[in-house]
Amino acid sequence: MTSAKQDYAKVLEISRKARVLGGISSLLGWDQETYMPPKASTIRGEQLKTLAGIIHEEQTGKSFKNALAKLIDLKTGKVKAKGLSQPQHASLREWRRDFLRETALPVKFVEEFAQLVSQSLEVWRHARKENSFQQFAPFLEKIVTMSRRKADLLGYQDHPYDALLDLFEPDITTKDVSQLFGSLRKSITPLLKKITSSKQNDDSILHGKFPEDKQIEFSKIILKDMGFDMEGGRLDLSTHPFSSSCHPSDTRITTRIHPTSVLSNVMTTMHECGHSLYDTAIPAEHYGSPLGEPISHGIHESQSRWWETRIGLSKPFWQYYLPILKKTFKGKLDNVSLDAFYRAINFVKPSFIRVEADEVTYPLHVVLRFEIEKGLIEGSIKVREIPEAWNSKMVELLGIKPKNNAEGCLQDVHWSMGAFGYFPSYALGNLYASHLFTAFEEEFPEWKKRVAKGDLTFIRHWLSEAVHQHGRRYSSKELLKKVTGKAFSADAYVSYLNNKYAEIYH
Amino acid sequence: MTSAKQDYAKVLEISRKARVLGGISSLLGWDQETYMPPKASTIRGEQLKTLAGIIHEEQTGKSFKNALAKLIDLKTGKVKAKGLSQPQHASLREWRRDFLRETALPVKFVEEFAQLVSQSLEVWRHARKENSFQQFAPFLEKIVTMSRRKADLLGYQDHPYDALLDLFEPDITTKDVSQLFGSLRKSITPLLKKITSSKQNDDSILHGKFPEDKQIEFSKIILKDMGFDMEGGRLDLSTHPFSSSCHPSDTRITTRIHPTSVLSNVMTTMHECGHSLYDTAIPAEHYGSPLGEPISHGIHESQSRWWETRIGLSKPFWQYYLPILKKTFKGKLDNVSLDAFYRAINFVKPSFIRVEADEVTYPLHVVLRFEIEKGLIEGSIKVREIPEAWNSKMVELLGIKPKNNAEGCLQDVHWSMGAFGYFPSYALGNLYASHLFTAFEEEFPEWKKRVAKGDLTFIRHWLSEAVHQHGRRYSSKELLKKVTGKAFSADAYVSYLNNKYAEIYH
Repeated sequence: MTSAKQDYAKVLEISRKARVLGGISSLLGWDQETYMPPKASTIRGEQLKTLAGIIHEEQTGKSFKNALAKLIDLKTGKVKAKGLSQPQHASLREWRRDFLRETALPVKFVEEFAQLVSQSLEVWRHARKENSFQQFAPFLEKIVTMSRRKADLLGYQDHPYDALLDLFEPDITTKDVSQLFGSLRKSITPLLKKITSSKQNDDSILHGKFPEDKQIEFSKIILKDMGFDMEGGRLDLSTHPFSSSCHPSDTRITTRIHPTSVLSNVMTTMHECGHSLYDTAIPAEHYGSPLGEPISHGIHESQSRWWETRIGLSKPFWQYYLPILKKTFKGKLDNVSLDAFYRAINFVKPSFIRVEADEVTYPLHVVLRFEIEKGLIEGSIKVREIPEAWNSKMVELLGIKPKNNAEGCLQDVHWSMGAFGYFPSYALGNLYASHLFTAFEEEFPEWKKRVAKGDLTFIRHWLSEAVHQHGRRYSSKELLKKVTGKAFSADAYVSYLNNKYAEIYH
Repeated sequence: MTSAKQDYAKVLEISRKARVLGGISSLLGWDQETYMPPKASTIRGEQLKTLAGIIHEEQTGKSFKNALAKLIDLKTGKVKAKGLSQPQHASLREWRRDFLRETALPVKFVEEFAQLVSQSLEVWRHARKENSFQQFAPFLEKIVTMSRRKADLLGYQDHPYDALLDLFEPDITTKDVSQLFGSLRKSITPLLKKITSSKQNDDSILHGKFPEDKQIEFSKIILKDMGFDMEGGRLDLSTHPFSSSCHPSDTRITTRIHPTSVLSNVMTTMHECGHSLYDTAIPAEHYGSPLGEPISHGIHESQSRWWETRIGLSKPFWQYYLPILKKTFKGKLDNVSLDAFYRAINFVKPSFIRVEADEVTYPLHVVLRFEIEKGLIEGSIKVREIPEAWNSKMVELLGIKPKNNAEGCLQDVHWSMGAFGYFPSYALGNLYASHLFTAFEEEFPEWKKRVAKGDLTFIRHWLSEAVHQHGRRYSSKELLKKVTGKAFSADAYVSYLNNKYAEIYH
């Protein structure tokens, strides 16, 4: 073995060890949300803190640094090693990025943050149940303070929030998001006004009594057709649905059931399955290297939103699945036509809960969170002001005001997880999905006919080929350009919304 | 802080870290047996291997060794530090014992063994299902070879099996067990002969249709009364029931349901709950030190067998619970009297499955396994000879021959887990329980009256006070002496069996 190959093998070995331990953390997180007894929350915090500390030590230790520094200049990013392949070059670039990020945070800080987050999660769960923002506030204050310190430690050019955004969406800045979200407002606001004034539609046919076991049964039919492998994954229930992966052979998703709504669980399951298919299709042979990891949270979200909205809210999809849905819930939907069903599932109405929002109002929920997060991090909003800020922004953006904090600022798990900077990815995911969809439609102009026959496999294969297989080889912008041939913009998303809802709402 | 206190704090810190990681391993083990998707078995092996490696590094590293060596002479075991309490002295004694054991095994060996065991577990599960010893044999051969190597690495005086026994039952040697089991044979064989020739009894009233959900419901009533805390634990299903603890605040048990037998699940649940109550009652403030750990597998088993046999198979227990059982399974047991039920649950009949065996034949199942294990380790039995050895010993000891290996040598999980040396603890647990019971009966001569009223709490408290609270402060022999005032022997167990079954079988 040449010296470069030895160093590369060393870096990979340590990186893989850290990845294995990270996978264990994911599994503990899954357990915490599904089956963990409540009294275990304190020791779970210590477990996660201990793992976070060890992972951090591995990723920043001398062995890793020395081997990496021989392969790539840590200051400039110039690859020094000879004879490595292009994918290996990409790995080095990403390892360096991760190393610089990890070394910015002291071990003690990482451990403390992990423990705080684990406790906050339990407190948030309780606070949400009891509709008490006051219970959660002191923990959130600590999380904001630590997140601000995190931004300082990570470093940034223009805005402290840049440093946090970078953790989830490497290519994007606060300024980018502000502009992008500004332009979304400009196009979505008039569309939403037109829609809400038309009043031609409602979704009452989707409500009634839909037993939990039947809902799960129907989810499992769709999961199977999407290609979700129950031998290498699970479907469980949790308060806040999520997808979790510790390896391509073990990806687990959760959903939640509203026994009076037939759609919510279907959309949630398709969403989380979209995430899971990404994690499952990343080649296992690259496990432990950046080539075995997803690009960014935004790209990940593009996969879930692709399945949830572009497929799950399309007419051809329900051309095939509505008869199966009717059969599952015998007698409940007998007189519902495909057209009526399609209009109902695409019913647009400002509502309180982000994850239940329709396609049109969804981005506005994200805009709201982004503005509050930015305010908290730059200090222009205080934690105690959140409920008021939240409610007044809801009125401003969606024209409605939450009755309580449980359906307002306590609804999302993210802040209790310390995941500041995460929310923008949710809106970006929609934009990415629509951008990618233009290429898919070009390759499969007949996709609607195939979906109407229940064929979903070719979609999964296309996504695996176009996106999943590359791991972090390309940046999100590079990938979006490579797949579509066009530079990334919000155009595809805006025109998709306009076309679709013009047809539905005439 | 004095230097001794600093060193003690250092040892405790590292020991606690290792304990936390060990707890995570337990949780991964629990997941593997309950909810893990089957395809994840390979990565689960890597996860466990990685954790085992880190734990081993911590427990044998320079920091730990240096601090410990300042407190206690690692060669002689003489405590060097001044000003430590008696419990701290006990901790040092046990830390030294663990250190000597851990340093005997190289990291690479520990990691390889953990991975082999994880794979074997999946293979065994499959082999048992398909009744194919051949599938399992090559893995078992590797495990035996590595266990033999393990014994050499650990060191022993008389017999290589001593080294393996010591991992589970520190005070006991192969010679001890051979003698003890020999004397059990002597007393059980004539008792079993008398019983099987009497033919006065059967357990047919315990069989019928007992729906799974009702069985679980009844288990949960008993768990609650025993003091099992569902906020700090769980009850799930698995092929081979077990109890798992990663901290006193998170102890999980599993059971299995035979839908045609009303007793099996009850006994299993009480057994595993007995383990769990021990783990829960060890003071959390000692978590991470030997004072926060159970003494031995035999003492652990004494707790499970105490609840399963000494309470769960007693008449006063069912005086209270039989009416509840009848209510749970409406119409199924209406005409069954307490006396008939008591005779049925104590029906003695040689059978194939150890965990379903009655009190009288149970120890003989353990004797069989001990003799085969001893043979495998000393080389007098080959892996390929196990099925034949098993079956002929079954005939010799119990007078019956398994129809296939699934109900023969493939029934237990232990060998696939690499747990050679474990089985004797099961029989020792019964002996310990009966020995301890003499002291309990002396303190509570009216115990039967209280149990007949559904009071189980005083039993749990007595066990916590007598056994659980001490952690590893005393050796098992010391504890048995301390609690009862008498040196340990098999007398209490033998006379318990003789008295009880003389009454039942006249």
